Amino acid sequence: MTEFFDRHRPMLDAALDAVRQRAFWSPFPEIPSGKIYGESARQDGETGFAALRHAAFELPGHPNQRRLGAEVSPFGGALGITYPAADAATLIAAAQAAQPALAAASPEARVGACLEALVRLNHMSFLIGQATMHTTGQAFAMAFQAGGPHAQDRGLEAVAMAWDEMTRFAPQARWEKPQGKAAPILLEKHWSIVPAGLSLAIGCNTFPTWNSYSGIFASLATGNPVIVKPHPAAILPLALTVRVLREVLAEAGLPADSVLLAVDERGAEITQELATDPAVRLIDYTGSAAFGDWLRSHATQAQLFTEEAGVNTVTIAATDDFAGICDNLAFSLALYSGQMCTAPQNIYVPEGGIDTDQGRKSFDEVGLALAGAIDALLADPARAAGICGAIANQATLERVQQARGLGRVLRDSAPVGQGRTATPLLLALRDGDPACERECFGPVAFVVAVKDADAAIARAAELARRKGAITAALYDRDEARIARAAQTFAAAGVNLSVNLTGNIYVNQSAAFSDFHVTGANPAGNACLTDTAFVASRFRRAMWRRPAAA
Amino acid sequence: MTEFFDRHRPMLDAALDAVRQRAFWSPFPEIPSGKIYGESARQDGETGFAALRHAAFELPGHPNQRRLGAEVSPFGGALGITYPAADAATLIAAAQAAQPALAAASPEARVGACLEALVRLNHMSFLIGQATMHTTGQAFAMAFQAGGPHAQDRGLEAVAMAWDEMTRFAPQARWEKPQGKAAPILLEKHWSIVPAGLSLAIGCNTFPTWNSYSGIFASLATGNPVIVKPHPAAILPLALTVRVLREVLAEAGLPADSVLLAVDERGAEITQELATDPAVRLIDYTGSAAFGDWLRSHATQAQLFTEEAGVNTVTIAATDDFAGICDNLAFSLALYSGQMCTAPQNIYVPEGGIDTDQGRKSFDEVGLALAGAIDALLADPARAAGICGAIANQATLERVQQARGLGRVLRDSAPVGQGRTATPLLLALRDGDPACERECFGPVAFVVAVKDADAAIARAAELARRKGAITAALYDRDEARIARAAQTFAAAGVNLSVNLTGNIYVNQSAAFSDFHVTGANPAGNACLTDTAFVASRFRRAMWRRPAAA
Repeated sequence: MTEFFDRHRPMLDAALDAVRQRAFWSPFPEIPSGKIYGESARQDGETGFAALRHAAFELPGHPNQRRLGAEVSPFGGALGITYPAADAATLIAAAQAAQPALAAASPEARVGACLEALVRLNHMSFLIGQATMHTTGQAFAMAFQAGGPHAQDRGLEAVAMAWDEMTRFAPQARWEKPQGKAAPILLEKHWSIVPAGLSLAIGCNTFPTWNSYSGIFASLATGNPVIVKPHPAAILPLALTVRVLREVLAEAGLPADSVLLAVDERGAEITQELATDPAVRLIDYTGSAAFGDWLRSHATQAQLFTEEAGVNTVTIAATDDFAGICDNLAFSLALYSGQMCTAPQNIYVPEGGIDTDQGRKSFDEVGLALAGAIDALLADPARAAGICGAIANQATLERVQQARGLGRVLRDSAPVGQGRTATPLLLALRDGDPACERECFGPVAFVVAVKDADAAIARAAELARRKGAITAALYDRDEARIARAAQTFAAAGVNLSVNLTGNIYVNQSAAFSDFHVTGANPAGNACLTDTAFVASRFRRAMWRRPAAA
Repeated sequence: MTEFFDRHRPMLDAALDAVRQRAFWSPFPEIPSGKIYGESARQDGETGFAALRHAAFELPGHPNQRRLGAEVSPFGGALGITYPAADAATLIAAAQAAQPALAAASPEARVGACLEALVRLNHMSFLIGQATMHTTGQAFAMAFQAGGPHAQDRGLEAVAMAWDEMTRFAPQARWEKPQGKAAPILLEKHWSIVPAGLSLAIGCNTFPTWNSYSGIFASLATGNPVIVKPHPAAILPLALTVRVLREVLAEAGLPADSVLLAVDERGAEITQELATDPAVRLIDYTGSAAFGDWLRSHATQAQLFTEEAGVNTVTIAATDDFAGICDNLAFSLALYSGQMCTAPQNIYVPEGGIDTDQGRKSFDEVGLALAGAIDALLADPARAAGICGAIANQATLERVQQARGLGRVLRDSAPVGQGRTATPLLLALRDGDPACERECFGPVAFVVAVKDADAAIARAAELARRKGAITAALYDRDEARIARAAQTFAAAGVNLSVNLTGNIYVNQSAAFSDFHVTGANPAGNACLTDTAFVASRFRRAMWRRPAAA
């Protein structure tokens, strides 16, 4: 049945147009407003979240050998939710049982179900926001946006790309080969979509939906059953997603077990067993490079799509708006306490200082102005809490403590608001300091003294090439150097933002326009969402036979 | 400079239309006729080939540390050609030196050069035919077609797909995000193509150009310097190709070293050293599954595109044209003495016989009729030599000798024509015989007794899934079973030909219409040419900055 497809076809077509043009577009409003989502939406989200707490999360028909779940809100308090859990073999078997019917369904049926699920998830954005907030530590406004509409955008983008790719070539053809004076050879040919196999989506702690929707929806749309393996600390947003998908699939006449939830516990993860199962042919992974390496070595039967780690950089060469860059970077560093894969870490400043609209600024003046801008941004405690949120993982807090000794403290980290929190730690370092060479995930940034702007650009690009980077930023007035930098960073496979001030930040990556992660440096081999992300999730098989003349 | 691009744009557009529609199309005539290629073309090809023999093959400007080359024609006689050779490190360094300029060139410049090279190669098809004949053992007519126009078709198909992919998204955009009553956020965004890195094309003995052009042209069009590593026994067709490419690249203002020839000798191959170099990021490989496994284990830094081995099957369930299927299969088995990755091996026939237009035929009658059709096809020695050609590799001849003992001989193999030759060996086997389970490359086929047609289809599909297969054929009159078989073989990732008789054969795979190898079973992970074959050979990097309102 393709009722869902017909209903959402206009949205699909608009999404396809958007990915081609790459201008701003989204069908899912990012503002958590009752005027858009319904006057009771905020309250409904809070009530819905409260009702889920201290209870058994139901996934009707899902494999259920035991109940697991030990999530604790970074803002304080155990969630008290348990989920149906099953061992890896049981989940694999259930996915395999769903496989033939999902593969046999038309692209319209699968894509229609994906679109309907995204629309239903959008209507639940306040609840998803609560779930995201209390598993990731994001403040609510961000949790709503990143966990809700922005994640839905990425899911839709993947569905649109999958649809485009599945329909790129004619599904049948009449092949007529001339034979000189003899009658031509006539064949009829028919192609069908052959999905790759089972798909595993390994979620992360900080962006459980945003980082996983692309892979989940790309695999499902192309006919691959998906086992969703959330981080043990951030299950709820993906459990809600799985429940919606299973409901929609069943309504569409497709097997609910085309999407399964693989809940496990810290210290007893089933990720490795799932990832190395011969039936698993696709793995989408967001997380550490160490586990990425493990997957590359052990899950050799599967195609891997990864987002791992990197060192993002800012180069400050010169500016016409010194206050503007300090304010802009302060927000980029403070937002969600730097727990974004797109947050800057190394801020390169020429040791001799820079030219600005406020005159020459020495290296120290730049560092202290940045520290001051962070202080000003976070002066109001309520606002500070709303920007920084909380720290998802205790290890991040310990990393901040240890980082203090790495350099000269320009601005110290401190608690803010409720729960496990930390504002940005800002340190001054010399170029070449080994601390600049590795990702220090969380609210830690280094202001690094370099010889000059050209050296900074070269260093930042070389680091991206060697260690990976998802974002780079440059502040400069020299158009020739900006042009050279664009080439240099492109060659290193990093997206570059130039002279961002005001209400747009280097951390931000907008679906339908920005490709997230280029796939061209060690920060990851997957790109959200380029053609390579969808094209190998399925193949085509033909049958042909002589046709009547 | 994009003069080449402008000149060949109509051909590119026609190719793109063809790949979308998948009807018959080719700009490169497959008939070795003087009326098409020029009255002196045949003679020029022979003269040109004679002039190359017993001489040093020149590649101006190419790394040249020593001269290597020990090709021997399967039809008899050493070619006596030596080629400039260099060690792996020297070739890698030369390719790396070419890399920045090739990457910086516009897609138009690279695609234009590829198109011009294909057109020049087409004009040389008689010479390429001679070179292919005397390295592969193909008879001239086939060597002309497969080595010339059909290979050029595959090259053009890859270039067209690469162009389509590089231009799929807008290269720049104005991104305007509404901000309620405030002024919108305006960004200008620019994307550039970031090639993956160095590309290695590992050629095979039997189809040096046909199997390598897709990878070579896809990589080059997307900006990756290509090191072409021919099989030591089949260098000349690829050396001619490399020479043309280097000439055209230089004329286009691009580095000639964007394409390099890696000549080595049997027993002293440099393939492993090239394949594991960290700079090599793309590998196109045609050859044994054993070396495919080695590459998967060792060349982990590169993306692999492989065509390996498989067991192709024919299922004979019933027919309205018994003589037609015998004649058709006889040609498929005899053509180039079965040395095609698409040639059938296991011919499943129900043990109780089949219904035909000539009445009921027992299992033995089917086997003997097939043997008789091969005998009739090869009765005239000159015609037989023109179909079978010669055996490329001595090991294949030895395999035929050993295969004789595997089952009951229905038709024995024998020499034919000049050189190292062998007509098809046809054996009768029982279902479940281990010999059916593995590829026996060369002029060996098994007529296998199975319970019934459904069992045959199930067995053939299961074998494809487990051991790989590139082609499957079915002869049947039962439309319901044909429909089921189409689904069964599709799920096993095999292209299926139904009821082929007359002048079209299961071995044949036409560019722009047939995808060659699905990528969905162990016969290979690459598909010529689907989107996945080109999409990950490059990435995109963006730079963005605030735009004026």
